[in-house]
Amino acid sequence: MNGLKFTESITRMLIPELIRKKREGFTLSKEEIASFVEGATLGNWPEYQLSAMLMAIFFEGMTTKETAILTNLMANSGKVLSWNNLPGPVVDKHSTGGVGDKTSIILGPLAAACGVFVPMISGRGLGHTGGTLDKLESIPGFNVNLDLNTFEKVLRNLGVSMIGQTKEIAPADRVLYSLRDVTATVESIPLITASILSKKIAEGIKVLIMDVKTGAGAFMPERDKARKLAKSLVSTAKKAGIHCEAILSNMDSPLGYKIGNALEIQECIEILKGKGPEDTKELSIQLTARMVKAGGITATLEEAINLVREKLASGTGLEKFESLIIAQGGDAKVLDNFGLLEVSSEAIFIKAKESGWLNFIDACKLGWAGCYLGAGRDRADGTIDPGVGIILHQKPSIQVYKGDMIIEIRHRNGKGLEKAMTLCEHAIVVEQSPLLENKLILEEIK
Amino acid sequence: MNGLKFTESITRMLIPELIRKKREGFTLSKEEIASFVEGATLGNWPEYQLSAMLMAIFFEGMTTKETAILTNLMANSGKVLSWNNLPGPVVDKHSTGGVGDKTSIILGPLAAACGVFVPMISGRGLGHTGGTLDKLESIPGFNVNLDLNTFEKVLRNLGVSMIGQTKEIAPADRVLYSLRDVTATVESIPLITASILSKKIAEGIKVLIMDVKTGAGAFMPERDKARKLAKSLVSTAKKAGIHCEAILSNMDSPLGYKIGNALEIQECIEILKGKGPEDTKELSIQLTARMVKAGGITATLEEAINLVREKLASGTGLEKFESLIIAQGGDAKVLDNFGLLEVSSEAIFIKAKESGWLNFIDACKLGWAGCYLGAGRDRADGTIDPGVGIILHQKPSIQVYKGDMIIEIRHRNGKGLEKAMTLCEHAIVVEQSPLLENKLILEEIK
Repeated sequence: MNGLKFTESITRMLIPELIRKKREGFTLSKEEIASFVEGATLGNWPEYQLSAMLMAIFFEGMTTKETAILTNLMANSGKVLSWNNLPGPVVDKHSTGGVGDKTSIILGPLAAACGVFVPMISGRGLGHTGGTLDKLESIPGFNVNLDLNTFEKVLRNLGVSMIGQTKEIAPADRVLYSLRDVTATVESIPLITASILSKKIAEGIKVLIMDVKTGAGAFMPERDKARKLAKSLVSTAKKAGIHCEAILSNMDSPLGYKIGNALEIQECIEILKGKGPEDTKELSIQLTARMVKAGGITATLEEAINLVREKLASGTGLEKFESLIIAQGGDAKVLDNFGLLEVSSEAIFIKAKESGWLNFIDACKLGWAGCYLGAGRDRADGTIDPGVGIILHQKPSIQVYKGDMIIEIRHRNGKGLEKAMTLCEHAIVVEQSPLLENKLILEEIK
Repeated sequence: MNGLKFTESITRMLIPELIRKKREGFTLSKEEIASFVEGATLGNWPEYQLSAMLMAIFFEGMTTKETAILTNLMANSGKVLSWNNLPGPVVDKHSTGGVGDKTSIILGPLAAACGVFVPMISGRGLGHTGGTLDKLESIPGFNVNLDLNTFEKVLRNLGVSMIGQTKEIAPADRVLYSLRDVTATVESIPLITASILSKKIAEGIKVLIMDVKTGAGAFMPERDKARKLAKSLVSTAKKAGIHCEAILSNMDSPLGYKIGNALEIQECIEILKGKGPEDTKELSIQLTARMVKAGGITATLEEAINLVREKLASGTGLEKFESLIIAQGGDAKVLDNFGLLEVSSEAIFIKAKESGWLNFIDACKLGWAGCYLGAGRDRADGTIDPGVGIILHQKPSIQVYKGDMIIEIRHRNGKGLEKAMTLCEHAIVVEQSPLLENKLILEEIK
């Protein structure tokens, strides 16, 4: 503020001055952002200064260029995988999180069946949204903690491998994400963008398909905010050197009929067998096709969609999934014996309280209901029960009659049941006229 | 965001939710502010959450009611002194910090001579602004570290005592202030207000006169920001149960002729002897008179000004200062022997580079020049040299001629001299027409 400073204090003053600069709405230089990222990674910025900077970024935002620099620096804070000599495009999909969203587990094998290489590093469920790793682990023996060498070997052999984040990948993101969680600085478009993309860049992919959820059960329920995030992801990825396309998809009601880890694996298998719920199947096909097209396997999206449908119909996708389960130590007999995917037999049914149009089953309420039952966790270190969850007997938008069975709860010894029942009851929205529009893919952002 | 939360996680989630609430611009309740203040005092809010909340307050502000609650809670985070049975009003003055501002040392004894009790807890210099404690310590033997019992005894006997902040006083402010310093959250009106007032409330005073500086050498150079701070102090103090009046005073050029610790004590003594620079003398009289009037000693400000002038002219103020020096272990012979206030004899002179009107001697540049010489410190744990500083030979606004001596630098072995000389040269502003207005007290805010 007062112009001159002591030379010897410049180093000491640097961090507060950088925070002040962002706080005043100025654009940070590459060197300044590097100081922040390095500070987070090596611990030479104390956490109280990291969190003050995060809050200043929350309020003042970042330009696309700043976000791209932040993203690249975070990606390069740890190991960056590279797949130069794979005989096909390296593509991944990422979703901002939903309820009943098991598309990753379907499209990974399906994309691989089309010739795409999918090195998928996923997360666990937190709060009302589920996580791919938790779902995969409900398959007996399935190991999501492969070391990077085994990960590469499986990917090279099958075209797909699915593991959890390792310590080597984007360590700056791990530090910053855990701080954001406890300092109310999660909901910042540039910070979300950098967090998602840094991990994907570190995966070594060159093409990313983003499924940004919007609606009641989404992390960003408001459509305009979700659109903003999608645009930020696409333009930041471009500046950071990877091709990214995004869709905005509807997460008002859950995807599919099943919510819960073993239940969702059942549904994945059903879809890979050509059965299962239309919404989840269609979204999986659409996302896979975008991976195939953006990866250059086909010239047009239509061709890609046809190729994906063909691989699904021929059972090649299911075969890939079988190989994947075996390669990662799982029991592939689950494909034909759902009894191996243990699901609690204790059931409670929720019925329609009135007649009319079932227009909406609130995905957020159902997500939290699942969480209370034990299917999810409310804190990063919580444990889950793979065998509990929710089965929808009806999906929007159809006519129902008072007393119709709508939701089946599978609980374990009544754990969390009362709260889950209340949430499920409130999740059912019956109205006197049908929903006019119920699109799954709302917008495309390239 | 998503409505329901786990019961068991409410406690854990409380802090981020409070930060989020302020971040979203909502008003915090008393219980919520109490969690923050207690968190700072007892350490049960980690520093990264304290700093995130500070940054959220920086951006979203606080209502006067919130600021008053914060102030009272910070004051009550430690010991709150009480002076119920003193035979006179308990009043203090506080300034936001200036260059050459030695008024506290003049008005403390002068107010006591008028019947006011002044339990003054002061700070040290930091950056370009000086501190009362540093100045007092240039008097051989003067002890600013009295325990609270001795502090009370001296106050009761003399009507004035001057010490430094003890660990018992407003510990929440100590934690938050040091965090603000390193997280770029200093310049926040509610946080400054709470920091100043909490310490003053803990002093047990019921009346406070605030001298809010504005202009080049002030902590808040812009007049509208300074006015905002003054208004915040007055209205927050009222809500927090103490009477506060503020003046906005001009800190474009330094106060008085002398800057530096021993040099400023010399000037205090000169003024208490009825001599010395007019600006400092007049500001001291005006501030003292406001303490006397607001304390209820006189009915009007005019009567108060007359009383203060009388006590100054009669030498009663000087006698009080003598008693104060003795009571706090200092050598009162300094009053008649400036040789006991050691000042370096190494001098360098800065002359006018052109003829014209000397309209401005930049207080900020002179403050930093003094700091380089060793009169101030750039970090809280730095040491100072009481015997170095700056003597002005001319003050704005007068006519000067090229080659006139304007500034005398008293340095020690050339330490910081080069930078100090450059700063002093640039501080002298000579223009071709005189300054039309050069008021000392710019506004009054009650």
